[in-house]
Amino acid sequence: MKVSELSRRTGVQVPLIKYYLREGLLPPGRATASNQADYGEDHVHRLRFIRTLIGTRGLSTSATKEILDAITAEQEDLHQVFGIVLGVRPTKMEEDASTEHSPNEPEPESAGLADARMLIAEMEWDVSQGNPAAHTLAEVLAALADLGADIDWRGLLPYARLADSIADLDVQQMRGERDVLAQAERAVLISILLEPALLALRRLAQEAKSARHFGGSRPDKANST
Amino acid sequence: MKVSELSRRTGVQVPLIKYYLREGLLPPGRATASNQADYGEDHVHRLRFIRTLIGTRGLSTSATKEILDAITAEQEDLHQVFGIVLGVRPTKMEEDASTEHSPNEPEPESAGLADARMLIAEMEWDVSQGNPAAHTLAEVLAALADLGADIDWRGLLPYARLADSIADLDVQQMRGERDVLAQAERAVLISILLEPALLALRRLAQEAKSARHFGGSRPDKANST
Repeated sequence: MKVSELSRRTGVQVPLIKYYLREGLLPPGRATASNQADYGEDHVHRLRFIRTLIGTRGLSTSATKEILDAITAEQEDLHQVFGIVLGVRPTKMEEDASTEHSPNEPEPESAGLADARMLIAEMEWDVSQGNPAAHTLAEVLAALADLGADIDWRGLLPYARLADSIADLDVQQMRGERDVLAQAERAVLISILLEPALLALRRLAQEAKSARHFGGSRPDKANST
Repeated sequence: MKVSELSRRTGVQVPLIKYYLREGLLPPGRATASNQADYGEDHVHRLRFIRTLIGTRGLSTSATKEILDAITAEQEDLHQVFGIVLGVRPTKMEEDASTEHSPNEPEPESAGLADARMLIAEMEWDVSQGNPAAHTLAEVLAALADLGADIDWRGLLPYARLADSIADLDVQQMRGERDVLAQAERAVLISILLEPALLALRRLAQEAKSARHFGGSRPDKANST
C-alpha cells in the first residue's frame, strides 16, 4: 500500500510517518519508484503499536525506538517483552546507564519498602527487584502511617487479593494475538489504558454502596439509559 | 492544650495553624490570655482532617473551607458527606456557579458516555448523574475504540465486578469511627490515598503472572524478605 493508505489505516498523519521512517522507528517500505514505496501489514502493526505506546506512556521518540529494538531482540520471550513495554524491566541502554552511575550500591530500605516486600512475599508474587510498583506501594504505606491511619501492609492484603484477580483477567485478555508486536500492543492497552478505568469503576461502585450503607436521599438520581 | 501541643499532636506547623485560624478553617480556641488560647480534641480532629484532605486531594484553602462548611451542614447524612469529600457531589457554591453558566443545557451524550451508562446500568449501580467517574470511564472507552482495540463496555464487565468487590472492602474500612470528621477523613484516605496502591498491587500481580504464563527466565529474581 502507498503511504497515504498506511496513514488511513493507522490514523497517523503522513508527515509523522515520514518522521518515524527517518528516525528508524519504522523500517523502509519496498521502493517502487524514486519517490514512492510500498508498505505492508507489518508496517500497519508497527505504526499502531508506536501510536499506542506513545499515546499511553507518553514516551519520547528515542525511548520508543529503544523499546522497539529491545522487543526485536527479545522476540521469543513474551514475558521479557511485556516487562519492557510496561516499564518494569529496563532496556539494556537504561541498565548500562544506571550501572555507570551507581555501581554496587545497595539501596537503603525504608520502612515502607520493607513492608511492601512483606506484602509481596505474603502474596507469593515472584517479581523482580527493580519493579517500580513496589516503591509506589511503599510510598503509600509510608503516607498512611504518616497520616496516622491504622492501615498497614496486612490491611492491604484483601486489596492485594482482588488485584491478583484483576491481573488474572489481564493475562486472559493478553492472549490470542498472532505476532509479538500485536501482543505487546495489547499488553500496553490492558495494563496502562485501563488504569483510569479501574479507578473510575471503583469510584462508581463506592458511590452506589455508600448510598446503600450510609443512607441519604439523592435529589438528582438519574442513571437510567 | 496550647498551640504548640496542637502542632505536635497533628504534625501541622504553628504558622500554618494560625493561617487556618485566620482563614476560618479552624474555629478559635478558648481564650485564656490576651495572646493565648486553649485548644481541644475537636481541633486535633479537624486539623488532621484538613491535612489529609489537602494532602490527598491537593485542594486550595478556600475549597477546603467550602468542604468543611458543607460537612457541618450535612452532618447527619454520611452519604452526602462522603460525596462532598470525594468530589462526587458538588458543594452548593459549585452548583450555583454551574447553574449560572449553563442553565438547563442537556449534555450531548458522546458514544463513550452512552456506553459508560450501559455498563453502570448493567452493574445496577445507583449513582448520581454528575459523578465525574462516569466521564472518565467514557473517555477510556472512547480511547480503546480509537486505538482499534476490541474491548468495549461489555469487555469491562469482569473488571467492574472486581471493582465492586473492592468497593465492598472500602465500605467496610469506612465504618467504625465515632464522629463525622473522623469518618470523612477515613473515607478520603481509603478512597483517594489507596488509588496508587491499587494500581501498584495490580502491576506487581501482573508481573508475577506474566512470568508464569508467558515464560522466561529472570536474571535478577530477588524478592525475598
